Amino acid sequence: MLFEPEGKKVSVSAGTTIFDAAKDAGVGVRSECGGKGLCGKCRVIVKDSKALSDLTEIERRFLQTSEVESGYRLACQARILNDVKVIIPPESRVMFRKIQVVGMERPVRLNPAVKKFHITLPMPTLSDIRPDHDRLLDTLSSVMKIDNSEMEMDYEIYKRLPDIIRSSSFDVTVTIWDNRRIISVEPGNTSNELFGFAVDIGTSKIVGYLVNLTTGEVLDVESVENPQIMYGEDIMSRITFAIAKPENLEILQKLVVDEINKIINEACRKTGISPQRIYEVVVVGNTAMHHFLLGIQPKYVALSPYVPAVKKQINVKAKELHVNINSFGIVTVLPIVAGFVGADAVADVLATGIHESDVLSLLVDIGTNTEVFLGNSEDLLSCSCASGPAFEGMHIKHGMKAVTGAIERVSISSNFEVKYKTVGDTRPTGLCGSAMIDAIAEMFKRGIINDKGSFNLQIKTSRLRKSDGEVEFVIAWGHETATGKDITLTQHDIREIQLAKAAIFTGCSILMKRKNVDEEKIDRVLVAGAFGNYINPESAKVLGLLPDVPINKIKFVGNTAIAGAKMALTSKEARKEANEISKKIRYLELAACPDFKEEFLNAIFIPHKNLNRFPSVRRFQIKGNSKYLI
Amino acid sequence: MLFEPEGKKVSVSAGTTIFDAAKDAGVGVRSECGGKGLCGKCRVIVKDSKALSDLTEIERRFLQTSEVESGYRLACQARILNDVKVIIPPESRVMFRKIQVVGMERPVRLNPAVKKFHITLPMPTLSDIRPDHDRLLDTLSSVMKIDNSEMEMDYEIYKRLPDIIRSSSFDVTVTIWDNRRIISVEPGNTSNELFGFAVDIGTSKIVGYLVNLTTGEVLDVESVENPQIMYGEDIMSRITFAIAKPENLEILQKLVVDEINKIINEACRKTGISPQRIYEVVVVGNTAMHHFLLGIQPKYVALSPYVPAVKKQINVKAKELHVNINSFGIVTVLPIVAGFVGADAVADVLATGIHESDVLSLLVDIGTNTEVFLGNSEDLLSCSCASGPAFEGMHIKHGMKAVTGAIERVSISSNFEVKYKTVGDTRPTGLCGSAMIDAIAEMFKRGIINDKGSFNLQIKTSRLRKSDGEVEFVIAWGHETATGKDITLTQHDIREIQLAKAAIFTGCSILMKRKNVDEEKIDRVLVAGAFGNYINPESAKVLGLLPDVPINKIKFVGNTAIAGAKMALTSKEARKEANEISKKIRYLELAACPDFKEEFLNAIFIPHKNLNRFPSVRRFQIKGNSKYLI
Repeated sequence: MLFEPEGKKVSVSAGTTIFDAAKDAGVGVRSECGGKGLCGKCRVIVKDSKALSDLTEIERRFLQTSEVESGYRLACQARILNDVKVIIPPESRVMFRKIQVVGMERPVRLNPAVKKFHITLPMPTLSDIRPDHDRLLDTLSSVMKIDNSEMEMDYEIYKRLPDIIRSSSFDVTVTIWDNRRIISVEPGNTSNELFGFAVDIGTSKIVGYLVNLTTGEVLDVESVENPQIMYGEDIMSRITFAIAKPENLEILQKLVVDEINKIINEACRKTGISPQRIYEVVVVGNTAMHHFLLGIQPKYVALSPYVPAVKKQINVKAKELHVNINSFGIVTVLPIVAGFVGADAVADVLATGIHESDVLSLLVDIGTNTEVFLGNSEDLLSCSCASGPAFEGMHIKHGMKAVTGAIERVSISSNFEVKYKTVGDTRPTGLCGSAMIDAIAEMFKRGIINDKGSFNLQIKTSRLRKSDGEVEFVIAWGHETATGKDITLTQHDIREIQLAKAAIFTGCSILMKRKNVDEEKIDRVLVAGAFGNYINPESAKVLGLLPDVPINKIKFVGNTAIAGAKMALTSKEARKEANEISKKIRYLELAACPDFKEEFLNAIFIPHKNLNRFPSVRRFQIKGNSKYLI
Repeated sequence: MLFEPEGKKVSVSAGTTIFDAAKDAGVGVRSECGGKGLCGKCRVIVKDSKALSDLTEIERRFLQTSEVESGYRLACQARILNDVKVIIPPESRVMFRKIQVVGMERPVRLNPAVKKFHITLPMPTLSDIRPDHDRLLDTLSSVMKIDNSEMEMDYEIYKRLPDIIRSSSFDVTVTIWDNRRIISVEPGNTSNELFGFAVDIGTSKIVGYLVNLTTGEVLDVESVENPQIMYGEDIMSRITFAIAKPENLEILQKLVVDEINKIINEACRKTGISPQRIYEVVVVGNTAMHHFLLGIQPKYVALSPYVPAVKKQINVKAKELHVNINSFGIVTVLPIVAGFVGADAVADVLATGIHESDVLSLLVDIGTNTEVFLGNSEDLLSCSCASGPAFEGMHIKHGMKAVTGAIERVSISSNFEVKYKTVGDTRPTGLCGSAMIDAIAEMFKRGIINDKGSFNLQIKTSRLRKSDGEVEFVIAWGHETATGKDITLTQHDIREIQLAKAAIFTGCSILMKRKNVDEEKIDRVLVAGAFGNYINPESAKVLGLLPDVPINKIKFVGNTAIAGAKMALTSKEARKEANEISKKIRYLELAACPDFKEEFLNAIFIPHKNLNRFPSVRRFQIKGNSKYLI
């Protein structure tokens, strides 16, 4: 079969999906869900419909009749029966993704938990019959200048120790974890080959850093979808799945472990490093991701009083978790806080240092699950908000991630004309999260929508129209786009964004109430998360996503979760700090707050039901005649 | 098929050996080697030779032509082809074995490394959202009155912790190992079900104790052959096998682990205890057995300068070793000393307390490998002697273990008449080790053999005769025995015993030389080992097995290796002491002693080449005419 416009040919067995065939051919087909039939983004065009399996229910849901007539199919659904030509339209091409994989981090002294020591052991003689293990420890002690008599060693290493040390004339390199466990004895001098891996398991995506632990340098960054998404986009639906059957939790665990192995392998392939030379993986993730990774029963995290199984840092042998690094390597999962404020949140705080600052910070890590912190060195209060994946493009008609072709900035003039900017400055194919925020803020400012988010049907512009039974606003006309089709924001899209932003603002608002802090007392608002950097802070305020503080107090800090994980990977002091942070942060369970519902309902308004909280937005209130969609 | 005289019938598939069929039928057939064709002791009688497979080479070696004509076969060699009647003659019946499975031990305060705590956790509430693990540790801390924040827990336990504690309304029993690791969390109160297992892996046999760790009581004792014997009777031949191919070491490891699992299961079956309620196994064994059990490369223990891989106590998860006790139970292998002085020797010392006594003790633990210690609280020197399995009945024409029917005592009058006593006072079927020692000492005293162990052919008695080309002395006539055949001691048998006793005495002698101690300075001689208790000390002296000290200084202390293992199982203080003993004992490698050969050659004489060392034996020197076999 043939992929166009790439012109790539590949042979596949009958029954293979186009999505899998494209993977084999090395042809990128866009997908937000990883080929699970959840996103409808993997559209391809096939003219010879007989060469494919019949249209599925999922395709019927995502494709319009006219599209089907034009030969559109979903690559993850259509199975190849005969030789066929598949055209990948521009909107379905996989391109550079503009997500924040780096984040603010505080400098640390390089002092990883895994260290290597190259030593030469004295050869045994009849007057020196010390056992191999004693010989090793004695020599190590003299090099490390500490008493090693209590140092542990993996049982499996004992087995081969005699052969290893003799294979290299008693010249070996010893890898020690946390000054208390020998995790590797290698023949010869391998002391320059010491690598680690940091992983942030997000609800939607997984980011990994391959780090040279002798220099602290990040050698490669990998970012992939979290494949668990096939069992639910948000945390609660995945937990529901996990507790339905005992084997389901194992499925979720295996999915994430396999994906971590994939990005480790990919990073190693790119850099020419052997996974055997990776000795530690430091993992962060929210409490649910943490439990899924470790295969820990997550049921009670989801039920009042929302108790996780374990809080403290967990060190597991990589082998026990089936993570493919050095045979005796360690997976270190950083401690969590509570409920849904997980190790990623601890890493956020570690990276930003808000826990040791005198100024009062509000830290918001926006994601499918959003963590919010308010406080300073004296006290830090946290909560978790179920913001959902709308900002990631899910459930938004033309939503997409911030890859090439995504509209990332939108402005609307007083005569309702739209200007936009795309990632990579190409023709647009859809809207990413920052564009949705811009668009809604701009529409509100121009009176196109009201404070309830409803379209003002009195507006005179051809951009506001009804299509397929739903009112929508055209951001880009078909003649401007890469797809030839209009890119719009629908009434339903706006509702989705309102719910997401309300979830986040409710977290901020309740924390402020509990700490008796108003907007004026907040010294800075730090916005973290994969796409945080691209948000227009003004738009975020108009939307009511963030509290109304002066723009200069808002700072975008990027992916602080992975940054914090990397700090803990490269510095034992940072790791210790992470453990102290975990103990220090207080947690507020929003689900248990009696005022949650009211706060949430108020926050659905744009920017908020109580305009006194958004003095800088008040001036955009709509004057004149309006007729709103209910 | 039918077993007689039991009259037991059993159906077997064609090709099954008689040995296996007997096992299935629950009919005991004697075997020293476990059915491996090494001992020739599993003789059975089958009249219908066509119902069996052809005679094997092994059978030709062990059976005389006349025996084959009478229908004798080896049960482990003959395969059943058709329905057949098998007669098990008296000498091949398995009977009560008189071996020492208990030994001298010093009393200890019951304080095992594994302990159980029955606790009730406070239920989580919205105002107490501590994670399950914190909740557990906090409650434990208040019960144990120690800070548990550093306590480790097996990763696998985390996984099920939320369900376990909720399955019993937060009422659980926690098992802690060594005050530092939670190895089990069980619903409800199981604090009375706390068991441990002590194992002594000898070169020839494995002894196990099932111990109630809430009382210290031994509930069951198991004793089986070490199945590794099929790959060599002595340590060196097993090491040779182990290093021939990498998988061979795994074979030896699996054999001993499977056998340990068998005796654990058997002990549990007899007592109605679940193996899941055994939380720790404490193992002792000589250095080779230690390395085999752990699968550690033993090659360099056998090569100068005889360096073992590891000396210190090793704690392995039972699961990693495939030992079937509680899923998270621990196997604790006590520390070794060096070379071939292993953890069994440490246990010997621990049980006898010679390391903290002011009196000068010579401790001899007789086995296939014999350990010798000389010293007191100031200094303790040890060595290991390759004494071989002759005293266990191997390579001795009518040799057998001390089971019912074995002659265990022999005396010979001045007119060469023999009196003997059998285990169980039945008709005799063979000679056990103590009888061999008696017989040779008596023959020497009566001038039947000389100091070289050669028969005096001038002796006038029908008991001294030539049979099958070899000179032998009849201990019991056929009409007295259970088999109807004469029980004899051959010239070859005597040579075997001389080599065994010379190996042991050489160890004693060299240690005495090194410590500059003569027989008079030794305050006591402690004889340990499975069959030690049944040795006549006078005979042992005449044979030259033990140094010539007054009889009242010789004390039989039994199986001190298993006794020491049990002490370490039931008492953390004893375990600590074992570790101190391991460090304190000095080791002498006999193979590296320049005077070894001469000492050994001198010790082959009965009692010794230098009669000045055996003043109490000198009076038995032969007078009169003698003509000796060369």
